[in-house]
Amino acid sequence: MSERVLVKQLKSLPEGPVRVSGWVETVRDQKKVQFVILRDETGAVQLVNPATREATDDADAAASVALALTEEISALASGTFLTVTGELKHDERVKLGGVEIKIATLEVAAAANPETPIAADSGLDKRMDWRFLDLRQARNNLIFRVQTTFEHALRTYWVERDYIEIHSPKLMASPSESNAELFSLDYFEDKTAYLAQSPQFFKQMAQSAGFGKIFEIAPAFRADPSFTSRHATEFTSVDAEISWIDSHEDVAHMQEELLQTAFQAVKDTHGAEIEELFGIEVQVPAVPFPRIPLAEARQIVADRGYEIPRTDGDLDPEGERQISAYVQETYGHQFVFITDYHPEIRAFYHMRDAETGLTKSYDLLFKGVEITTGAQREHRVDVLIEQAKEKGLDPAHLDFYLDFFRYGAPPHGGFGMGLARVLMLLLGEASIREVTYLFRGPTRLAP
Amino acid sequence: MSERVLVKQLKSLPEGPVRVSGWVETVRDQKKVQFVILRDETGAVQLVNPATREATDDADAAASVALALTEEISALASGTFLTVTGELKHDERVKLGGVEIKIATLEVAAAANPETPIAADSGLDKRMDWRFLDLRQARNNLIFRVQTTFEHALRTYWVERDYIEIHSPKLMASPSESNAELFSLDYFEDKTAYLAQSPQFFKQMAQSAGFGKIFEIAPAFRADPSFTSRHATEFTSVDAEISWIDSHEDVAHMQEELLQTAFQAVKDTHGAEIEELFGIEVQVPAVPFPRIPLAEARQIVADRGYEIPRTDGDLDPEGERQISAYVQETYGHQFVFITDYHPEIRAFYHMRDAETGLTKSYDLLFKGVEITTGAQREHRVDVLIEQAKEKGLDPAHLDFYLDFFRYGAPPHGGFGMGLARVLMLLLGEASIREVTYLFRGPTRLAP
Repeated sequence: MSERVLVKQLKSLPEGPVRVSGWVETVRDQKKVQFVILRDETGAVQLVNPATREATDDADAAASVALALTEEISALASGTFLTVTGELKHDERVKLGGVEIKIATLEVAAAANPETPIAADSGLDKRMDWRFLDLRQARNNLIFRVQTTFEHALRTYWVERDYIEIHSPKLMASPSESNAELFSLDYFEDKTAYLAQSPQFFKQMAQSAGFGKIFEIAPAFRADPSFTSRHATEFTSVDAEISWIDSHEDVAHMQEELLQTAFQAVKDTHGAEIEELFGIEVQVPAVPFPRIPLAEARQIVADRGYEIPRTDGDLDPEGERQISAYVQETYGHQFVFITDYHPEIRAFYHMRDAETGLTKSYDLLFKGVEITTGAQREHRVDVLIEQAKEKGLDPAHLDFYLDFFRYGAPPHGGFGMGLARVLMLLLGEASIREVTYLFRGPTRLAP
Repeated sequence: MSERVLVKQLKSLPEGPVRVSGWVETVRDQKKVQFVILRDETGAVQLVNPATREATDDADAAASVALALTEEISALASGTFLTVTGELKHDERVKLGGVEIKIATLEVAAAANPETPIAADSGLDKRMDWRFLDLRQARNNLIFRVQTTFEHALRTYWVERDYIEIHSPKLMASPSESNAELFSLDYFEDKTAYLAQSPQFFKQMAQSAGFGKIFEIAPAFRADPSFTSRHATEFTSVDAEISWIDSHEDVAHMQEELLQTAFQAVKDTHGAEIEELFGIEVQVPAVPFPRIPLAEARQIVADRGYEIPRTDGDLDPEGERQISAYVQETYGHQFVFITDYHPEIRAFYHMRDAETGLTKSYDLLFKGVEITTGAQREHRVDVLIEQAKEKGLDPAHLDFYLDFFRYGAPPHGGFGMGLARVLMLLLGEASIREVTYLFRGPTRLAP
């Protein structure tokens, strides 16, 4: 028998015998004819079988085979995985791709339990309980193809520019960001290990190690009790860090070029499908992205009539939506860098501008949601210790990190970006749960 | 001033003013002339300065600047990161790359503590204490460039063949492989979470989800108390899983093609440097790799005079070296698939051959060390339950996993490969500690 062909290949094949494998999406069991919609990882195709409903008196072998096939199709449960051989026919009246396969043989790989626990319109929590079934939907399959293309474009951009890929440890002897939202576990020799909240310290270590430019795409962990659409206890963090920068502006410049490249790849590869299944036209962002200092952004938001309730000088989620709306209206751009944050609302390792005292850092907003914090880091160990103390941190606890700067270090900076947030916004989804393979949150640890 | 240029670019630049940034490897402070070896992420270059040792009576401004520069160079500690401008000269007498820069200005970014805690010949444990300094060595830098090229070649192979990249969760409600060597932690709502020992269950889930072909490169965690050169408590696992296979042979075929592609990329990009710094000629493996059934491999090892002490029918590390030596002598090949393992020494989810009762699985050895286990998985849920029971596992604890096969599943299989083991063997290193960015073991949780 011929090799398996993918459903997406059928359209360009000549009529004749073919073999396809996939799962049963639906069965339409009419009296005279049976239709099966078979889906594989590339699409769906209609299979057809003229029904043989009863063995006639002078039943020959062929007729009894036909009867058995008809009964087997009638009994097929949705979700059953099977391989079908048959005759491919081109027929433009067939809405599903203009092709049809007349079934010759049918082999079940694993029959599905006929009680399917979820439907396409089940609630999100129920769908997450049965995520492996939920992922069979064409739009969910597309999400992860988009993710694959997006990530590969990021990595290719970096690799072509001589970045080194690192795998920093997720088990640490001390917290990587703060003492809050920290998972800890018993390690060997009565030690306590902490799960990395970010690769921050270790991507900076690569700068002291003379790696120059590095990237990492890896899990990060936050014991975050919140239930928003943007938070998870485990998430995929996209990180880069580069040496010999003049300011955070060099980081922003790299990131905007990187995102432009990756969005272009997504549009080229999946643009039409995204439009069909998500109703979204992928916009490849023009560079440079608009940049607005935080104080100016707050003024713009205030002028639009929204009063930010936060007293710490930062934007709140509604403020982020407002400033993004302004940028969209004014510049027709979906991205905006907000810059010049006060040290009080930034991590101790953000470098400060000697003149203004503000940090050399940015947040990047995409369609009204923060997807990245980027900054130049403080590499002068005496200044770094002062800034840590100012935040109430004990330099003794940071000693292994401070060592990275005691034996020479270049000026450097980088960013961290939440992969799921980008995907959520890119596809117009309401929650990162929809674009995460298996979401982890305070009440969600399985499957 | 001009843009920063990388050391590797100097050779092809015309003589004239340049700017380089990097760190001080050595200073040779002679009476009449000073030499600084500056290294950056691409190589090392000699900087030169005619020493001005004392201000003359009729000292003019230029002379006092020259004196200050001389004194600054004398005081430079190894490891100090700095930017130098000067005149590039081509001079074939200069052993280091045939170029030299006559220093005009020198700007220190961060001065190193003059007491460097390690030397190139320090012991491994000491070097790991100061890994960020250890990584400044050219050969260590090369390790991670090789890793970057290797991984990107793997991913590109997969992406070009329509594989989907997944990020499976590392926090789980139940063990992913066995109850041994398991890290656990307190989660929300008094739950216990476990760190994934492998992505096994979740990469199989992608098959039930109809993803077809998937890959993942991500951390995995084992509370493994052993101190061998091949084990770690956290390691980077390279995983792939594919649907609609006929047997483990389809998996092996993909893996050998994949490795051939990736080794070719490493040889093309870094072959000369690997030969120079590691004394290793990268061999691109021919396909197909040799395949030897386990029973036959044991016989070959016995015929070579080595008696395997294990009584479970498997190979031991010396047996693996012996069979690899045999394959090298007989076929001139560094790789060998050992096949047909007895179910007793394989995981419960390995499919068994209906005729022989042996598992449809393999181990892949590279230069005498196991780097991979691959297999076709059992996708028939009733058989899977029986096999789990036979291993003493309670199917109730596996229920979320067994569900993946109750609603239809394709025949499928895959492999897991330890990234550090491949790199160690490829570069002829003695331990995975040498090729891991920051190693984690029973007594090693920092830096």
